[in-house]
Amino acid sequence: MSITANDPNRKTWLDIPENTDFPIQNIPFGVFLTRDDIITIGTRIGDYAIDLGALHQLGYFDGIPLTDDIFLQDTLNDFISDGKKTWRLVRNRIAEIFDIKNTTLKENQDHKTIVLFTLDEIEMQLPVLVGDYTDFYSSKEHATNVGTMFRDPDNALLPNWLHIPVGYHGRSSSIIPSGIPVHRPQGQTLPNGATEPVFGPSRLVDFELEMAFITTDANALGEPIPIEEAEDYIFGLVLFNDWSARDIQKWEYVPLGPFLAKNFASSVSPWIVTLDALEPFRTEGPKPEKPLLPYLKSKGKKSFDIKLEVALQPEGGEETTLAHSNFKYMYWNMSQQLAHHTINGCPVNSGDMMGSGTISGPTPDSYGSMLELSWRGEKPIKLMDGSERKFVEDNDTVIMRGYCESQGRRIGFGEVKTKLLPVFQPKKK
Amino acid sequence: MSITANDPNRKTWLDIPENTDFPIQNIPFGVFLTRDDIITIGTRIGDYAIDLGALHQLGYFDGIPLTDDIFLQDTLNDFISDGKKTWRLVRNRIAEIFDIKNTTLKENQDHKTIVLFTLDEIEMQLPVLVGDYTDFYSSKEHATNVGTMFRDPDNALLPNWLHIPVGYHGRSSSIIPSGIPVHRPQGQTLPNGATEPVFGPSRLVDFELEMAFITTDANALGEPIPIEEAEDYIFGLVLFNDWSARDIQKWEYVPLGPFLAKNFASSVSPWIVTLDALEPFRTEGPKPEKPLLPYLKSKGKKSFDIKLEVALQPEGGEETTLAHSNFKYMYWNMSQQLAHHTINGCPVNSGDMMGSGTISGPTPDSYGSMLELSWRGEKPIKLMDGSERKFVEDNDTVIMRGYCESQGRRIGFGEVKTKLLPVFQPKKK
Repeated sequence: MSITANDPNRKTWLDIPENTDFPIQNIPFGVFLTRDDIITIGTRIGDYAIDLGALHQLGYFDGIPLTDDIFLQDTLNDFISDGKKTWRLVRNRIAEIFDIKNTTLKENQDHKTIVLFTLDEIEMQLPVLVGDYTDFYSSKEHATNVGTMFRDPDNALLPNWLHIPVGYHGRSSSIIPSGIPVHRPQGQTLPNGATEPVFGPSRLVDFELEMAFITTDANALGEPIPIEEAEDYIFGLVLFNDWSARDIQKWEYVPLGPFLAKNFASSVSPWIVTLDALEPFRTEGPKPEKPLLPYLKSKGKKSFDIKLEVALQPEGGEETTLAHSNFKYMYWNMSQQLAHHTINGCPVNSGDMMGSGTISGPTPDSYGSMLELSWRGEKPIKLMDGSERKFVEDNDTVIMRGYCESQGRRIGFGEVKTKLLPVFQPKKK
Repeated sequence: MSITANDPNRKTWLDIPENTDFPIQNIPFGVFLTRDDIITIGTRIGDYAIDLGALHQLGYFDGIPLTDDIFLQDTLNDFISDGKKTWRLVRNRIAEIFDIKNTTLKENQDHKTIVLFTLDEIEMQLPVLVGDYTDFYSSKEHATNVGTMFRDPDNALLPNWLHIPVGYHGRSSSIIPSGIPVHRPQGQTLPNGATEPVFGPSRLVDFELEMAFITTDANALGEPIPIEEAEDYIFGLVLFNDWSARDIQKWEYVPLGPFLAKNFASSVSPWIVTLDALEPFRTEGPKPEKPLLPYLKSKGKKSFDIKLEVALQPEGGEETTLAHSNFKYMYWNMSQQLAHHTINGCPVNSGDMMGSGTISGPTPDSYGSMLELSWRGEKPIKLMDGSERKFVEDNDTVIMRGYCESQGRRIGFGEVKTKLLPVFQPKKK
């Protein structure tokens, strides 16, 4: 089925800003609370949020096989379960409804009042109920930087890294949408030179600049997903800030991997940009440096040229952009990740989230974490206001943005913006 | 509120086997499919499964604050969210309904036909929707055995082990109830002496004898659970077989922990035995060998004397019991695990599952995995039929059982029984 929603020449009758992340060619999906305190599934064009539940009730999706309440839900999971064909039909239809040549909704003031919201009238929610969250470790530059700092500069990459898209399970319950603040975590750390751990607030709180893809129901227990089918099960992507506490991580992570250093929060951008919308921005990833086992051999352009940036804003101050990176730097692509994840028969369901791991580029200004940018604190970073940062400080806000741009076309993700609060103080009883 | 359901002198009017795991003092909770293909929440007394949805509709829970459909669900999550007070009211009421002195249901043949099922009339389901699954590593004997085999016999325990209830996130989507067979996983392994990995079926498939506890909604993002409150948030326990592929694990697990070696399946016993039912079997755990940080200091008897055993049954053959262990061997108790898990503010929700890690005892006949029992294959285990096992073979069935017993009282978990099938063969298209 052709993705007519991607037609680059289409314009919309909505009044939208130039160079928006959300032109009529994007049509992402999200969940929001409306001014009437109703939860609905919606999309966004320019700075309008569009209530798909209302549009469906008004008959605008007639002819597409959808249950009546498919958009009147507090998560996208059921819609995502409907599969790629349905996602395409819905995106194509939305493009038609808002096409500048289509006057049906444009000239129906009553319907427009019901369907359209400005951004200040809504509150974005987590777009999916995340059944399982996996985080990969797929940027070679990031893995090399971390290996150099914490292990051995001469053998920074571990022996399995070039053979396996290394990943581990994360915590679903602490995945939160942009805008929800996070408390600095407390925990055990081992001070340099000490033999006994101490307890207290983490002193090395960090962000990780990542993206995450969201899957549909992919396979039954026991059944691997062949790599050439993997993209059929990917609904879309979000920006992903995988908050980390480096000092807690260092003490706890051997031998079973990171746990409390990571599971206090991961923040996501609220609009899922579909894989379909990213089609024009396909690109090749890095060439494999070792021969791959057959189940990991992917063909064609399986990466995407998505420009990423991360900024830090001190309380009341202005933003400083800390780094620019790109999704295409990832050594392992999403098809490889999903094929690997299921090669043992692990089932993948609708709403599962798969993080890329920190996406660092080849140059120091493209590193995706404070750990790398400040080189574990040895090179403090100067902010616009003159202050310095080695890691994230209380009341700092971290902002990540991402967008594709080529030949005047832009498809963006908006942002994920999260404030770090001081350590949680229990209420007196 | 007193737990009258635990009255040791109570007898039931139901005809139940002597020495059953499920006397009227147990009253576990599970989910089953009835002969009429209806999903309901139920309990078990002797070899009867009891439809709580039907009991509630018939008015037997009048006076207890429950929503009408609380038991007419395909998971226990909402009931568990109702909290400890409600669980107690319901267990106490069930005990009254089936008390030998109570003739109300006993003499109502119509009601009994609706409410009571024999075990062959029902099909047990997974009792909860597992939002997040964490696996701890809390048996010192197991951690020591594994450290001795894979790292350094002189420093078998890693430096953090006596300070932290080490744990990691597992995969929720592959948690399955007893009776569902599991395919031998395929994956990458590094043969001894090789420098490049190979692909194929795992040759070292293993079980892990564990238990898991199930939580209720415990805390908001950012908010730790104090250790003295931890048990308020524990609904109950199940037997837990954490299937493992040792050869895949060895190659993949550095530095982020086990992934595909574990996430192909974990099998649970279908009846959740409540923490309340286990009250009479409280016991002290091992004494801490290092001073604990205050947030991990627990008071009183926080462990439970639960006898565990694991058996292996070859295709068509008889069972061989491989090991006897006990939940009380765990160095870290559940309160410590939950306090640690949330000390950084990680939110815990209803239906979350927390595995103990393999529970090995002090003697070689109490080890909880084939890895330890056969000492990584060096000491093959003789089965009743004369054959030998180093690890689990295709078409072997692994059976785990657990029960508390003291002074003539017994509260049991039944069993978790899982057959290992050969590698999955894709259907020809």
